[in-house]
Amino acid sequence: MCCSADSAACAQTGASACRLDRLRAACADAGIDAFLVRDTSNIAWLTAFDGVFDDEGAHALLVTPRAAVLHTDSRYADAARVAAADGPVAVDDARKTHAKFVADALGNRCDAANAEGDAPAASLVLGIEDSLALGEFRALEAALVEAPAEVPRLHETSRFVLDLRAVKEPSEVARLRAAQAVTDAAFAHIVAFMRPGMTEREVQIELEDFMRRHGAEGLAFPSIVATGPNGASPHAIPGATRLEAGQCVVLDFGARACGYCSDMTRTVFLGEPDERLRAAYEAIRQANEQVEAALRPGVTGKDMHELAERVLADHGFAGKMGHSLGHGVGIDIHEEPNLSPRNPHPLVPGNVVTVEPGVYLSGEFGMRLEDFGVITHDGFAVFTQSTHDMVII
Amino acid sequence: MCCSADSAACAQTGASACRLDRLRAACADAGIDAFLVRDTSNIAWLTAFDGVFDDEGAHALLVTPRAAVLHTDSRYADAARVAAADGPVAVDDARKTHAKFVADALGNRCDAANAEGDAPAASLVLGIEDSLALGEFRALEAALVEAPAEVPRLHETSRFVLDLRAVKEPSEVARLRAAQAVTDAAFAHIVAFMRPGMTEREVQIELEDFMRRHGAEGLAFPSIVATGPNGASPHAIPGATRLEAGQCVVLDFGARACGYCSDMTRTVFLGEPDERLRAAYEAIRQANEQVEAALRPGVTGKDMHELAERVLADHGFAGKMGHSLGHGVGIDIHEEPNLSPRNPHPLVPGNVVTVEPGVYLSGEFGMRLEDFGVITHDGFAVFTQSTHDMVII
Repeated sequence: MCCSADSAACAQTGASACRLDRLRAACADAGIDAFLVRDTSNIAWLTAFDGVFDDEGAHALLVTPRAAVLHTDSRYADAARVAAADGPVAVDDARKTHAKFVADALGNRCDAANAEGDAPAASLVLGIEDSLALGEFRALEAALVEAPAEVPRLHETSRFVLDLRAVKEPSEVARLRAAQAVTDAAFAHIVAFMRPGMTEREVQIELEDFMRRHGAEGLAFPSIVATGPNGASPHAIPGATRLEAGQCVVLDFGARACGYCSDMTRTVFLGEPDERLRAAYEAIRQANEQVEAALRPGVTGKDMHELAERVLADHGFAGKMGHSLGHGVGIDIHEEPNLSPRNPHPLVPGNVVTVEPGVYLSGEFGMRLEDFGVITHDGFAVFTQSTHDMVII
Repeated sequence: MCCSADSAACAQTGASACRLDRLRAACADAGIDAFLVRDTSNIAWLTAFDGVFDDEGAHALLVTPRAAVLHTDSRYADAARVAAADGPVAVDDARKTHAKFVADALGNRCDAANAEGDAPAASLVLGIEDSLALGEFRALEAALVEAPAEVPRLHETSRFVLDLRAVKEPSEVARLRAAQAVTDAAFAHIVAFMRPGMTEREVQIELEDFMRRHGAEGLAFPSIVATGPNGASPHAIPGATRLEAGQCVVLDFGARACGYCSDMTRTVFLGEPDERLRAAYEAIRQANEQVEAALRPGVTGKDMHELAERVLADHGFAGKMGHSLGHGVGIDIHEEPNLSPRNPHPLVPGNVVTVEPGVYLSGEFGMRLEDFGVITHDGFAVFTQSTHDMVII
């Protein structure tokens, strides 16, 4: 194995070789001989191919101790071969199902292993992701039974590659910072652009267009622009509601740049906010800042969620958040680890998480203040550069 | 059952009630007592809720003969309740897993059925989608075993709701036409905008921004702008390559409007095309137009794919397409039915399909000409209004 996530060796040997070796080490620990990856984000991470994959789940990557083969189709094959040049991943665009590809590849591998006197084929354990669709799982079972080789045992794993992705390499942190820089710039732009009378949708279009024209290759997720009572739905879809003086507006948005996502939320005020809005904003700001000061290796997601809940309760907003405090971010907008009551595991250096306390008062308003950053050896380095001060338009 | 897809009754009784009854009828035919829907697009179609769902697969819909309950979380609950008012779908945002929700709901239903003297609980068959993630399937198995009621038998289905969605209602056709109108307008705009020297990415940004500012609520898929040899990769990702005189540029893009997708491809020429480009364009135009003239109820996806392949071969481009001729479009960009060698089923009125023959010459160029439209009682009504004539910039 060439390196761990926090060593500098990745840059020397190539990200893909390192990541494949991290997967192989995890497989060896779990008694897995070969691993089938179908999640496209996992494949993008393991291959480290830039600019090959889109939203379609059209690919499979089979990783064995000595090889990694990407099975794709003719639409992607040329781009994949260019990206794969001189690297550790082979590309196969044979016209067959992924299930047949796996069955054929393992059959060949078993033959080769037998010839070399390796472990006999009957003992082969194939790791699969439990994010695999049930129908594909059935097709895989059928293809393996039909194949001439011994049928491998399927080992169903949860978050196997995602857990590796939870510890970011320095090169990934650089990409995440680049994505956030676009997002901070977009916030500065939209604050200058917004004014009462505009619709949520108009603001959303301007925000997203700015990100695309200033370095984003796409959006991390559909942006939220929610004014007044709409802000009380944390996943409101921007619509024809017009911004009105006296309200607050929740802006939750992120860019995708260099293959990685950013995620930020700011709540801005249209005209001088009343006392209740000020009190709620102070509550979420305190919750955000106390968590960011407390984040470091060893604390758990549960600890941090409960800290935020306590701060909100101390300010008179007990039970008004309703969602988890934060989540991991990387190639996907929602990754491991979570800052939630259901995560008792200590955070480690390289974890990238959002911190997004919110207060939602149904029928009145909602607000949220979200940064994201990376756990360092002794604390938390925030990527987000935009102010926590009240922004009054 | 209140109506079929092509009756006018849907508008009177509400789309959701009709679609739920179509699902219930299909369930009855298949011996299924209750159906669990986890695919968000299927849920969006069955509930006919506008503006509630985003990209997250955060919801479950349980449909029984007498009820339909959406299990969602606090982020979506307010919007879902507004959309559900006076309709046939109930909303439940209890904090539990979808698996536990189903186990609890079926336990209650069994109790109620027993009290009413209905079929005994032991005979209950629960239909599930085989697009369900394997991990969720395992969680569902475990939750059902732990529940106090008799364990239902799980019936794994493929494309069960998708097959219903393959026959569009008139109101859906209207939404699809609206989405295509945005797309046609964007094509007119981008033809006036494009010129040699621009990058693919600049053209993509302008194209997508136009759609968003002219009625699209989002994109149907990331747009393709591929010039010169890049066009030979049917799923090329737009980049820094500059448009050059003498080349052709493939533009493949679509809007999402009123919850539905559009999809079109045009290939445009930068300056006077040479004979080889002209010959290839004539081949794809002929293939497109002969298929569109042949489309009607009763022909199969296989027939149409083979017709296109024959026309391309007659023009000297045998075997240069490499992908299927077309696919269904609706709430998702890829739906049933497919115009592919693997679809032997006759098309029926209400099927909405793309027709997108292409020619790809690796290292040289690629081109594609794509419309979409609906199978009528005696032919094919094309939604796409943009010209098939060569567009030379």
